[in-house]
Amino acid sequence: MPRYKLLIEYDGTPYCGWQQQAELRSVQQAIEEAVFKFSGEKRRLATAGRTDAGVHALGQVAHVDLVKDWTTDKVRDALNAHLTFADDLVFILGVEKMPETFNARLSAKKRHYLYKIINRRPPSAIDRMRAWHVPRPLDVAAMHEAAQLLLGHHDFTTFRATDCQGKTPMKTLEQLDVAQEGEYVLVRASARSFLHHQVRFMVGSLAQVGLGRWSAQELWDALDARDLQRAGPLAPAHGLYFVRVDY
Amino acid sequence: MPRYKLLIEYDGTPYCGWQQQAELRSVQQAIEEAVFKFSGEKRRLATAGRTDAGVHALGQVAHVDLVKDWTTDKVRDALNAHLTFADDLVFILGVEKMPETFNARLSAKKRHYLYKIINRRPPSAIDRMRAWHVPRPLDVAAMHEAAQLLLGHHDFTTFRATDCQGKTPMKTLEQLDVAQEGEYVLVRASARSFLHHQVRFMVGSLAQVGLGRWSAQELWDALDARDLQRAGPLAPAHGLYFVRVDY
Repeated sequence: MPRYKLLIEYDGTPYCGWQQQAELRSVQQAIEEAVFKFSGEKRRLATAGRTDAGVHALGQVAHVDLVKDWTTDKVRDALNAHLTFADDLVFILGVEKMPETFNARLSAKKRHYLYKIINRRPPSAIDRMRAWHVPRPLDVAAMHEAAQLLLGHHDFTTFRATDCQGKTPMKTLEQLDVAQEGEYVLVRASARSFLHHQVRFMVGSLAQVGLGRWSAQELWDALDARDLQRAGPLAPAHGLYFVRVDY
Repeated sequence: MPRYKLLIEYDGTPYCGWQQQAELRSVQQAIEEAVFKFSGEKRRLATAGRTDAGVHALGQVAHVDLVKDWTTDKVRDALNAHLTFADDLVFILGVEKMPETFNARLSAKKRHYLYKIINRRPPSAIDRMRAWHVPRPLDVAAMHEAAQLLLGHHDFTTFRATDCQGKTPMKTLEQLDVAQEGEYVLVRASARSFLHHQVRFMVGSLAQVGLGRWSAQELWDALDARDLQRAGPLAPAHGLYFVRVDY
């Protein structure tokens, strides 16, 4: 039974997130319905990242096993046709056939996130659901410098949602870069894996640094306290993009 | 009575265009309501460009006269607060006080438009209402070369909507550049003024060239025929951005 790796883009705005929740429409459901309409097979997808409601993806990865040996172009085009017809904001950018040993979740070596802040006084109409609007000026250099303190292997309990299902709060953060691009402040985060809400809590805390409310030392103290009460505000979902998975 | 120049960004998706049409919500109406709520004055805006339904703006310009002499920051912030409260996708990027001789429409020396095409097989979820999806590969060099034939002073009847209210079909096209940027093909058009639908008809016709259906000569012949029947298909509104006005 061939295993297909799907590279997926979505606008998270109308979805309850990747995973099914009661009556709400999920990204997973949108794709699984398209798989069923196309192949007649009811299949569960395995995914690299269960993004939250409102979080976007430029390069989410999932895999699915199908009985029939389709061409990868056929799988991509047929899924996109069904997703378009269902008016979903989810599309398949590419399909690859993989050996059975490949697992979208377990084989992932590194996950890359991008967080977009629009940092100017007026809100953005075009990027309203695409970037977090922070109207007061951010000190981007201070944010980047403080961010470097979070790199490496730490107990990230401070930046972990209470409902996080991970076995351990220990994670190794490999990259946390903060850079200005025109009116935007872009935060790029990479690690083998992240805790639930980790990127958004880190961005919300870095914003405290950027606004001059926290020093770099206070960011470090917050991490060191291993206490969610010490985290900055949770940055909104609509600024977050799941960009890429390395295998 | 001070005259205020407004620099405006909007997402055209939910609007019937700049101008009021029956029961539909227009960009103009959104701003005029915000002006009224803020100042108590019922005023008409004059604008540089009456964009169509679905067309976006990054730098639309309008002017309005108000009795009271507000600071420009106050006008910008108050209008944005009312626009946010009304859940409009229109924001004021900047406000300037101008002499009475300034007119947003009549003083405009050059108008700049950008047309975004996403040129790849799968549709885009993130840019669904932000770029025209053309799934077959476009020959961007051929499009750019053909576009240069349209520069200069011509009768643009071929690229003019039947309902266009301009006094003459004679226009001077100053720039029409076609360039690749990653998966995007960007068309930049500049002129003192444009006919109704001119940019979208030109882009639709250039796409015919890019798809190999028309030669550059056929584009020229279409222009020379001065006949709307000879235009390519009208490119969709959601790829078009009103970018800037020079005064």
